[in-house]
Amino acid sequence: MKDLPDDGFHVFDTTLRDGAQREGINLTVADKLTIARHLDDFGVGFIEGGWPGANPRDTEFFARARAEIDFRNAQLVAFGATRKAGVRAEDDPQVKALLDSGAPVITLVAKSHDRHVDLALRTTLEENLAMVRETVAHLRSQGRRVFLDCEHFFDGYRANPAYAKQVVATAHEAGAEVVILCDTNGGMLPGQIDAVVRTVLADTGARLGIHAQDDTGCAVANTLAAVDAGATHVQCTANGYGERVGNANLFPVVAALELKYGRRVLPEGALEEMTRISHAIAEVVNLTPSTHQPYVGVSAFAHKAGLHASAIKVDPDLYQHIDPERVGNTMRMLVSDMAGRASIELKGKELGFDLGGDRALVGRIVERVKERELAGYTYEAADASFELLLRQEVEGRPRRYFRVESWRAIVEDRPDGTHANEATVKLWAKGERIVATAEGNGPVNALDRALRVGLERIYPQLATMELVDYKVRILEGKHGTESTTRVLVSTADGQGEWSTVGVGGNVIAASWQALDDAYAYGLLRAGVDPQE
Amino acid sequence: MKDLPDDGFHVFDTTLRDGAQREGINLTVADKLTIARHLDDFGVGFIEGGWPGANPRDTEFFARARAEIDFRNAQLVAFGATRKAGVRAEDDPQVKALLDSGAPVITLVAKSHDRHVDLALRTTLEENLAMVRETVAHLRSQGRRVFLDCEHFFDGYRANPAYAKQVVATAHEAGAEVVILCDTNGGMLPGQIDAVVRTVLADTGARLGIHAQDDTGCAVANTLAAVDAGATHVQCTANGYGERVGNANLFPVVAALELKYGRRVLPEGALEEMTRISHAIAEVVNLTPSTHQPYVGVSAFAHKAGLHASAIKVDPDLYQHIDPERVGNTMRMLVSDMAGRASIELKGKELGFDLGGDRALVGRIVERVKERELAGYTYEAADASFELLLRQEVEGRPRRYFRVESWRAIVEDRPDGTHANEATVKLWAKGERIVATAEGNGPVNALDRALRVGLERIYPQLATMELVDYKVRILEGKHGTESTTRVLVSTADGQGEWSTVGVGGNVIAASWQALDDAYAYGLLRAGVDPQE
Repeated sequence: MKDLPDDGFHVFDTTLRDGAQREGINLTVADKLTIARHLDDFGVGFIEGGWPGANPRDTEFFARARAEIDFRNAQLVAFGATRKAGVRAEDDPQVKALLDSGAPVITLVAKSHDRHVDLALRTTLEENLAMVRETVAHLRSQGRRVFLDCEHFFDGYRANPAYAKQVVATAHEAGAEVVILCDTNGGMLPGQIDAVVRTVLADTGARLGIHAQDDTGCAVANTLAAVDAGATHVQCTANGYGERVGNANLFPVVAALELKYGRRVLPEGALEEMTRISHAIAEVVNLTPSTHQPYVGVSAFAHKAGLHASAIKVDPDLYQHIDPERVGNTMRMLVSDMAGRASIELKGKELGFDLGGDRALVGRIVERVKERELAGYTYEAADASFELLLRQEVEGRPRRYFRVESWRAIVEDRPDGTHANEATVKLWAKGERIVATAEGNGPVNALDRALRVGLERIYPQLATMELVDYKVRILEGKHGTESTTRVLVSTADGQGEWSTVGVGGNVIAASWQALDDAYAYGLLRAGVDPQE
Repeated sequence: MKDLPDDGFHVFDTTLRDGAQREGINLTVADKLTIARHLDDFGVGFIEGGWPGANPRDTEFFARARAEIDFRNAQLVAFGATRKAGVRAEDDPQVKALLDSGAPVITLVAKSHDRHVDLALRTTLEENLAMVRETVAHLRSQGRRVFLDCEHFFDGYRANPAYAKQVVATAHEAGAEVVILCDTNGGMLPGQIDAVVRTVLADTGARLGIHAQDDTGCAVANTLAAVDAGATHVQCTANGYGERVGNANLFPVVAALELKYGRRVLPEGALEEMTRISHAIAEVVNLTPSTHQPYVGVSAFAHKAGLHASAIKVDPDLYQHIDPERVGNTMRMLVSDMAGRASIELKGKELGFDLGGDRALVGRIVERVKERELAGYTYEAADASFELLLRQEVEGRPRRYFRVESWRAIVEDRPDGTHANEATVKLWAKGERIVATAEGNGPVNALDRALRVGLERIYPQLATMELVDYKVRILEGKHGTESTTRVLVSTADGQGEWSTVGVGGNVIAASWQALDDAYAYGLLRAGVDPQE
């Protein structure tokens, strides 16, 4: 079942439980199933799916995950609390729901900070230990693997180290396989984590795990500090999603373990999928992937400085801490007004143009880029628009598939509360004047449809193209809707995806520009000859 | 001049030089001057402003900064390279430009990795040492303080520790006040940094600084590890801006030093300005402030989990690693469909409503929030829309200032390349039917103006309100412009700012909803009675 040789090290993912606490994330059951599949593909050992019984969504997730997913690498984990004070573990409905989930592994959360026992649980320190002991023993007697999360462990250790350690020892003796020390409030630094993990390990003999929150910006380093100190179980979330600042980010943690420590913690070949998996999960939770995320961000291996660009031509390894392909990412040269000639030449090469010999041409391209970026365009995020610009300079004139005479978009809110969106375009293509009108669910959609309606007869290739992402950015944040608007459009044709940019004082006009470039590039990609 | 007692510890900011390498940042001279003022207000000791002579913008920055800014805390630093191989330092125009900048402090960058000397500088190891020695000595003889950045130090140390240390010793002996060990490729982990800094300190006796890049996600921890090992100079950037993944983030570094180490590194009272300064700098560089940034993100002290919400009512300190007010941030309770009754009650209290006594009312609000969030609304980022919803439930009916009969927006691209944007609104207010038409630089702007033109006679308070931010988010990224659109609008009235949300299949209709809420809330804030 497991691709890993032994149970020596646990990569434990809690994206679906703790990660879902992030502001802005709301997961459906379908979302959770999709993410679980991605995490299993990636090769984590454990996927904590939620708190069965706490809400119908999590209960349904466990039922469906067991039925629908054939896990190749991961074991499914249910999360829940120790029994309530004064109730037998076998009589506590919350504990029963954990067993009913059918998950082979159960993570119990327990209080290990004396003040939390008093103020949040409202019970005695002795009863809390009994709750730990009896709940662990009960679940073990039912044949489940049990991990125990010590909530607020590090703060609790500072307040009352003897009691905090007693909770760890109690869980360990009752049969918990791993006891996880949680920096729930996220206030720790690596040196503190290191010292506490070493002491607890020596004093209790329990197998220890680490759960770090990122409130000091050190969650990755704290996780690694715990591993250095002897922890053999790391709890992380994809892209560091989690409450407040977030949790320890799974990706830099496993990348450090594999690439810096030389420790195999994932199945063979998994690391090369990391960038793809990170972006796919961001897509499911509907957050834009962080462009600056270590290892997997689109900027993580992007070089901008002119100084570096010329040296990178000599030896890329001198300027990168790892080969980006090891994590499924790629090196990129950024086209920007800081970029000198060397960057433009490298970028041209990336696109298949050898500009090396023509100094005047490279100079013209640098100038055009500077001038357009000053107006608000960004070619860093719009490779297709850059290639059109570059081709225009190389070929001496734009390669045009159609000419726009004018267009119009109307949005109307009617007294009955419905909306009408209508667009008309007037175009010339193949010497023919085309007037087309279409409706859409918004003005940009109506324009997009009108353009297709008008052109599809002449360019049937347009039928395979689809807008897959649409981003609007206001460039000067100080005057609301009076600012310059930049639109980035991503278009796909089943073979690949490309990005184009439009800029204007007007969201519709900026969108039109980006659409215009998107279809021009799509037709170019498709090998169509211009027939304007 | 300096508020700090001595020169014992350097907080060195390089946002304007290294931070500007971040993908997506393009700073004008005016931007740089504004950021320099913010950094000086915050109280950093050194502001690296750029590379005078390398481009006209940086040269102009130094001239204007000296003339226009009366620094209270910081010294201005010019960045440049050691002299070219085979040229005398006093004859090198690049070195001369550093002196001409008038900056009292100069940071020189030097190679300390033998392979970079060979491949990038194309000179000998001996000549590189002479370049360091002579350039430092020349600048010192001209009365400048000199810091020396050892580029690629940690990789260089791994390849050839003796040579890397020789560069440090050479700079130190020639009069460089601080030698900064740079993890230029960002591949290090805290343990490695700690070991190397300790050894270099012991072997050279030089005063050491640290410059960490965040490629492993450990830049903050790496910076602190260097301090633990004896470095007394930290190079950071505001919000961690920088090439690739970014640089060590100034804010969590100084917060850790002040709040966790108890070390005074900023003037009295500066830390409480941290959140404001972080957001102000993001505004200038035109990047949305990271919501999940440690200490200063709007989510950094936001609590979502129902579990926590009930306990936070007892004692907030149990659930926060620091009091958010110490860094100028605030605790927030998030309204979301994961929130239970306790969160809604706390949020109500935050807004001045005591909902504690009315279980049915709280239940109704929880239901409305769930239902609206399912449709794509988000109240986490739109407090004003939430307050309108809450008031509607508390007061039994919406407080309406006007009723919309219909509206229409037209965008037209004319054959001459200009655009016309026109909007008409039909409204009822104070028993009167109002028809108003206005033009704008875009359809939303035209609608905004038409609404104001129509209503300003009845509600003159609208004149003080202004849209200050406008964000569009596509909720389902899979179908381009056919997706659901969410618009967030921020509006200000000179006293404060509030955020509202609109959702629809249509960017214009969603914007209209957000505008409608924005003005309703603005009039409510202004104490106006509804006169529909």
